[in-house]
Amino acid sequence: MYSFAFGIGTKNLKQDWLEVFFPEPLLNPDNQLIKQIASLVDYGGGNKNIDLDDDQIRALIDGIDEPRQQSILSTMKGSSNPCVATFIETDIGLSSTPEAYLKLHLLSYRYVKPNEQNLDNLFAILPNVAWTDIGAVDPAELGELQLKARAEGRIMEVAGVDKFPKMTNYVVPAGIRIAHSARVRLGAYVGEGTTVMHEGLVNYNAGAIGPNMIEGRVSQGVLLDAGTDLGGSASTMGTLSGGGKHIVSIGKDCLIGANAGCGISLGDRCTIEAGLYITAGAVVQVLDEDRNFVRTVKARELSGQNDMLFIRNSQNGVVECRTNKNAISLNESLHAHN
Amino acid sequence: MYSFAFGIGTKNLKQDWLEVFFPEPLLNPDNQLIKQIASLVDYGGGNKNIDLDDDQIRALIDGIDEPRQQSILSTMKGSSNPCVATFIETDIGLSSTPEAYLKLHLLSYRYVKPNEQNLDNLFAILPNVAWTDIGAVDPAELGELQLKARAEGRIMEVAGVDKFPKMTNYVVPAGIRIAHSARVRLGAYVGEGTTVMHEGLVNYNAGAIGPNMIEGRVSQGVLLDAGTDLGGSASTMGTLSGGGKHIVSIGKDCLIGANAGCGISLGDRCTIEAGLYITAGAVVQVLDEDRNFVRTVKARELSGQNDMLFIRNSQNGVVECRTNKNAISLNESLHAHN
Amino acid sequence: MYSFAFGIGTKNLKQDWLEVFFPEPLLNPDNQLIKQIASLVDYGGGNKNIDLDDDQIRALIDGIDEPRQQSILSTMKGSSNPCVATFIETDIGLSSTPEAYLKLHLLSYRYVKPNEQNLDNLFAILPNVAWTDIGAVDPAELGELQLKARAEGRIMEVAGVDKFPKMTNYVVPAGIRIAHSARVRLGAYVGEGTTVMHEGLVNYNAGAIGPNMIEGRVSQGVLLDAGTDLGGSASTMGTLSGGGKHIVSIGKDCLIGANAGCGISLGDRCTIEAGLYITAGAVVQVLDEDRNFVRTVKARELSGQNDMLFIRNSQNGVVECRTNKNAISLNESLHAHN
Repeated sequence: MYSFAFGIGTKNLKQDWLEVFFPEPLLNPDNQLIKQIASLVDYGGGNKNIDLDDDQIRALIDGIDEPRQQSILSTMKGSSNPCVATFIETDIGLSSTPEAYLKLHLLSYRYVKPNEQNLDNLFAILPNVAWTDIGAVDPAELGELQLKARAEGRIMEVAGVDKFPKMTNYVVPAGIRIAHSARVRLGAYVGEGTTVMHEGLVNYNAGAIGPNMIEGRVSQGVLLDAGTDLGGSASTMGTLSGGGKHIVSIGKDCLIGANAGCGISLGDRCTIEAGLYITAGAVVQVLDEDRNFVRTVKARELSGQNDMLFIRNSQNGVVECRTNKNAISLNESLHAHN
Repeated sequence: MYSFAFGIGTKNLKQDWLEVFFPEPLLNPDNQLIKQIASLVDYGGGNKNIDLDDDQIRALIDGIDEPRQQSILSTMKGSSNPCVATFIETDIGLSSTPEAYLKLHLLSYRYVKPNEQNLDNLFAILPNVAWTDIGAVDPAELGELQLKARAEGRIMEVAGVDKFPKMTNYVVPAGIRIAHSARVRLGAYVGEGTTVMHEGLVNYNAGAIGPNMIEGRVSQGVLLDAGTDLGGSASTMGTLSGGGKHIVSIGKDCLIGANAGCGISLGDRCTIEAGLYITAGAVVQVLDEDRNFVRTVKARELSGQNDMLFIRNSQNGVVECRTNKNAISLNESLHAHN
Repeated sequence: MYSFAFGIGTKNLKQDWLEVFFPEPLLNPDNQLIKQIASLVDYGGGNKNIDLDDDQIRALIDGIDEPRQQSILSTMKGSSNPCVATFIETDIGLSSTPEAYLKLHLLSYRYVKPNEQNLDNLFAILPNVAWTDIGAVDPAELGELQLKARAEGRIMEVAGVDKFPKMTNYVVPAGIRIAHSARVRLGAYVGEGTTVMHEGLVNYNAGAIGPNMIEGRVSQGVLLDAGTDLGGSASTMGTLSGGGKHIVSIGKDCLIGANAGCGISLGDRCTIEAGLYITAGAVVQVLDEDRNFVRTVKARELSGQNDMLFIRNSQNGVVECRTNKNAISLNESLHAHN
């Protein structure tokens, strides 16, 4: 069993799931526990969601041997919101909304890292939702509710209309700060010791190992390793729009300056100066530690190297990659293989 | 009659309007309907707001022949919030708050496109409002309410202090996604199929025809045509501060890269590379499809052309406009007229 | 006495302060008033917080001679939230949470300007807080509350997890607009006549004298003087991460263009063109008013000068500082001292 969890969520008037909250998801759950649950909810295998009524919830509280899950079920009992048991037996492409939400929870719980699980069909499976102060609402049902709220003297707050909710309304992992949570989607991986400032933005299936300082945008698929700072409004190029197929990863102890951008992967201890955007196709002059010219390459050929400093020479407009001794030897080996 | 709508809104303690919500505004409404309404609320022509009491609302429900408006009036009936009938006979400069809100609704309902209606006096007419979780509040009345909420064990949420509310609390047009709605003002035009990501920002009287991907800032007056992507933190230059008088428009199927900027209009199929800001005054080298030098121009002379690719040459710092064959012929004709 | 205020706030289950709201803080309060209060709450000097019970609040209402403070105490009376009297006798490093909150209030009330008071230990003293729609919550206590809210049919909104709250939930100074308040921290100094647009961001101990237009990021310690515009996504380099020890200040009537950045101080009437990032270490060519070359300097040598225009020459990639006559004479004097 890849993952299992009890969830409580919201359905629209057509009884389709809009979203599911999983208070204590399990990765690779204990076989004995799953057997107990399976017999009580009539689960026969596969990736499947089983809606739970109050009788089943009571039976589960009595019939399973796991205090934390029992406590969750006790709180769910009697709720007017729909409850579900979600089984993901195998990590294959997504086929239901609860499954999608469960996999996004696994990322935000840091049980799996970005790019480690199969998220195929995610956009097709996730419904578009109006995220309001009275909960998740189907956009088609929104207009009447807005007018009704007005007539009752309230303004209904519609914080977003999107396939993804904010992470913090579902998961707040320990040891982090997120100054403004609207910019961190459920499915973000925010590692211990990481601060996401107001200008920071972390997409689903993206994040930072921690500790990191994030003041820029971590695009879908991108992962920052420990000690790396992403400056204010700094951009990491994603694969969804504009970018190519290469998934950018950034190594340890890098600094991507404010208003800079990165379209290639970086190894460890790399710097991109503030305001400079390195696209994969940018032609870059590689300089050695004495600032002597080594060669001219497209930036993508430097992808993943350590100890690179990218600047735009302010006296002639040349984009330079200044390297230290280690970097040069790497570059020589790269050269040798050409 | 240019526009008509029934509204429900908020007044301050001095009985001045702070904001009005129009659940079903009409552009060029049916003459017969307006006649019916006029006789029931004693409307004698001109751009005018008529406050409605419950007796009038009842009379309107019985006296008009339009089920959707009747249904709205039925919901409004008995509300403690003030209700209004707003008539805009002619599209002239603004003279009241309800009128301003109605015209902003028309934009967000996609009944009119940016720059198509007269918004003169908008800033003078719109009051500054504290947008809170208990509704619209006059900033002068805020302090006492904040303390009172505290004493009652609540923190009063003040989401903004501004002349404009967020669009989604008034209008959520069909077929869109807006990841974080605080950055899309009422009066934005968000076309069908458009996604506004967290970093996207759409001002009033600005927007995108749809489908579009907006991850940057669409300034007042700016309109993106179908298929155009505005990258993360990309800037379109507005006319309110810093910019000149030229209203930027962007054609179809353009890509303005992340952290780029655009101070001129673009035709169709144009690209500005990530991180490059093209101001109107920037001196640009025009190259033909073989990258041969054609001429040097100020960017504003290229305004509105098709098939331009703007990059900063990373080997010599020159800002280039690379064109395809079509573009060149256009440029030649431009040249011929000089 | 440096500062005094009555506050009402939130404690966690361990009875540690999470945050305090001070509805009417006093800078250099009247000695007579402090004497009256001291005798009623048994204050014996020093920087100290005294928790107030209802009997003390009643005694204070009767025993002090200041109608505004009496009115505040009357509202606090009977509240289930903890109340406090915070005395800051001397402006030394911080030693308690209420003290820290009081000093942040003084900034946002515009009683002190950024960098004028001692904020040592601020990060150590401020607890990390989950800012929710039911108030401030200790992150350690959050999970159970989130599940409970779900079972009751609500989604608990967690707007941030951070040491700082948003300013507007504590202080809304007169004569300002803040389009999206989540990006202005308590402790920001937002001067009269200032507009902070959606893309604007003001850290604590940072701000603008007013009137100003802020569409970019004002980093900790940075102060903009009157008439200066900070363009969309423009960056001011702070001292917390990436930047050096120099605290950037920006003079009057400057324009830092959209997507630009500034790592040095600017005097009056300076401009940085859109998209250009001036780091302190950038090598810059100084040109006179006829655009003749004067000298090459590191940008930090120009720090604080008036009448500078920074652009990147789009024909050769050179970063230029174009000056007017006044500026040149200043530069000459600078040169003379080298």
